[in-house]
Amino acid sequence: MTDFDLLGIGNALVDVVVQADDAFLAEHRLDKGGMMLVGPDRSDFLYSKMGPATESSGGSCGNTMAGFASLGGRGAYIGKVRDDDFGKVFRHDLDAIGVTFATPPASDGPGTGRCLVLVTPDAQRTMCTTLGAATSLTTADIDEAQVRASSVIYMEGYLFDPPEAKAAFVHAAEVAHAADRKVSITLSDSFCVDRHRAAFAHLVDNHIDILFANEDEIVSLYEAAGFDEAVQAVRGRCEIACLTRSAEGSVIVAGDDVIEVPAAPVDAVVDTTGAGDLYAAGFLYGYTQGKSLAESGAIGGIAAAEVIAHYGARPAVSLRDLLPTG
Amino acid sequence: MTDFDLLGIGNALVDVVVQADDAFLAEHRLDKGGMMLVGPDRSDFLYSKMGPATESSGGSCGNTMAGFASLGGRGAYIGKVRDDDFGKVFRHDLDAIGVTFATPPASDGPGTGRCLVLVTPDAQRTMCTTLGAATSLTTADIDEAQVRASSVIYMEGYLFDPPEAKAAFVHAAEVAHAADRKVSITLSDSFCVDRHRAAFAHLVDNHIDILFANEDEIVSLYEAAGFDEAVQAVRGRCEIACLTRSAEGSVIVAGDDVIEVPAAPVDAVVDTTGAGDLYAAGFLYGYTQGKSLAESGAIGGIAAAEVIAHYGARPAVSLRDLLPTG
Repeated sequence: MTDFDLLGIGNALVDVVVQADDAFLAEHRLDKGGMMLVGPDRSDFLYSKMGPATESSGGSCGNTMAGFASLGGRGAYIGKVRDDDFGKVFRHDLDAIGVTFATPPASDGPGTGRCLVLVTPDAQRTMCTTLGAATSLTTADIDEAQVRASSVIYMEGYLFDPPEAKAAFVHAAEVAHAADRKVSITLSDSFCVDRHRAAFAHLVDNHIDILFANEDEIVSLYEAAGFDEAVQAVRGRCEIACLTRSAEGSVIVAGDDVIEVPAAPVDAVVDTTGAGDLYAAGFLYGYTQGKSLAESGAIGGIAAAEVIAHYGARPAVSLRDLLPTG
Repeated sequence: MTDFDLLGIGNALVDVVVQADDAFLAEHRLDKGGMMLVGPDRSDFLYSKMGPATESSGGSCGNTMAGFASLGGRGAYIGKVRDDDFGKVFRHDLDAIGVTFATPPASDGPGTGRCLVLVTPDAQRTMCTTLGAATSLTTADIDEAQVRASSVIYMEGYLFDPPEAKAAFVHAAEVAHAADRKVSITLSDSFCVDRHRAAFAHLVDNHIDILFANEDEIVSLYEAAGFDEAVQAVRGRCEIACLTRSAEGSVIVAGDDVIEVPAAPVDAVVDTTGAGDLYAAGFLYGYTQGKSLAESGAIGGIAAAEVIAHYGARPAVSLRDLLPTG
């Protein structure tokens, strides 16, 4: 028995969520649906042009861990905030849902990272992230005992953006495998894949047991002509690949098996932020509870459906209450 | 023609909004529906016990000014934040909606004030406020030229809690009246009235043209046996008294007139935070646009109905778009 079912490692960010229209995206040359890295000056400039906002804890992997805990899983998180208001918010929101978060905050340098999340009327989110303190995550922040004490470790592809974090990431994967643990990753977004394609492909071949990617990301990773070609490309490169397709559900590739999982129903999609993060939370919850791949994928779909029905990237209700009984 | 239709003076706070149940309120001895002042240690303790939260700009008067601007009014705000993350959030959210906010932030002392808003399943909100930097608002922060340049000034009763702010408040009223401007106030909540009953009664008789109060507050102010008795008690003490009664709408007392205004319809009440603040925004928008008292009260009802249909105390849509045309 391990101490944790899942240990997440990610960029610790606070989301600044704002409603915006397509004209705003065009005026400021923001690619709809993507995550752009911006410096603090650009972030401050965009913020000054945005409407009134709401702040909440975010970070792709932080969202996954919040979902995982909401389902009832035992989770831990490694990531770097500063000792400022936003850092305290991020820490509180993981503590409050029962995720162990022991990484000490930075006491100098840039403030806690933030992600401007622009939600357009079509429920798409466009993100501008300034990493701030998250860039100071290093190998020294990887608690090796915690890695060995976790059944699965999960890392976000966005961690490849801060260079030191990438090294920490590979180190964590090596420690996990030496202890016979599973290593999982999400490719995060297609722009992130564009930035790090060769490194990601190498990582998947050498370090990853469970891969999460959406259609754009997996197509980009293998520069495939389409989804079916990408499915063939990923086959055999890792134990399990979970490929999400928005309203068309997910496809799970494991050895010779290709399992299609339908999406969970949603009344009205309000804000797609966190959909992929919550799918991973649900799948990994099922997986670490010994459920089948199809059942795990279905739980992923339920968790994703909850989070896209409201603003914000973390669950608004207890996800455990949404699971089928029995 | 004045520069501003409305100048608000209030405690500048960031709301930390969390879902809670009645058991949590009972365990921590919190009076449902009220606003309790707490010290920073108590605030930190309660926060550590709360679930995951969402942060957004608040402060009763700040909410009113956001609503006023959303309706299309020309507004300004005076209040004190610190130069920290939360202070920047508060400032941004007023700037972003077009409210002029020129009060310089405090550069030392306690952080920006925060209000823990516990929303129970019955849509009631229970608030624990630590005033922080708001306690450093003094008479020196009252921009007299701005007061004289505003048709109406509006102040929240909560300003009577920090002692220096109370003096600033009376000073602002005197400057306004010397320039032939109108002075309005909300009693804020019945616990606040309990703390400052004699001072409020004196203020209404001597400095106030337009009074906002809900049923509990006006009954408490005059220690009346019921609402009808309170209506008689307030008559003649100020030019206009707007008395709100939740789902029963509002009653406007002006000279010999008692005008009953029905509430605007709401599909489902989610979170009553900000209802009174937005009623005042709507009424004062109508008033400063030269509408009748009944029309102004109806606009107040429309603004209140919008804000109670979602979490958070500021409008989620443009209130101007909700007004009847013509």
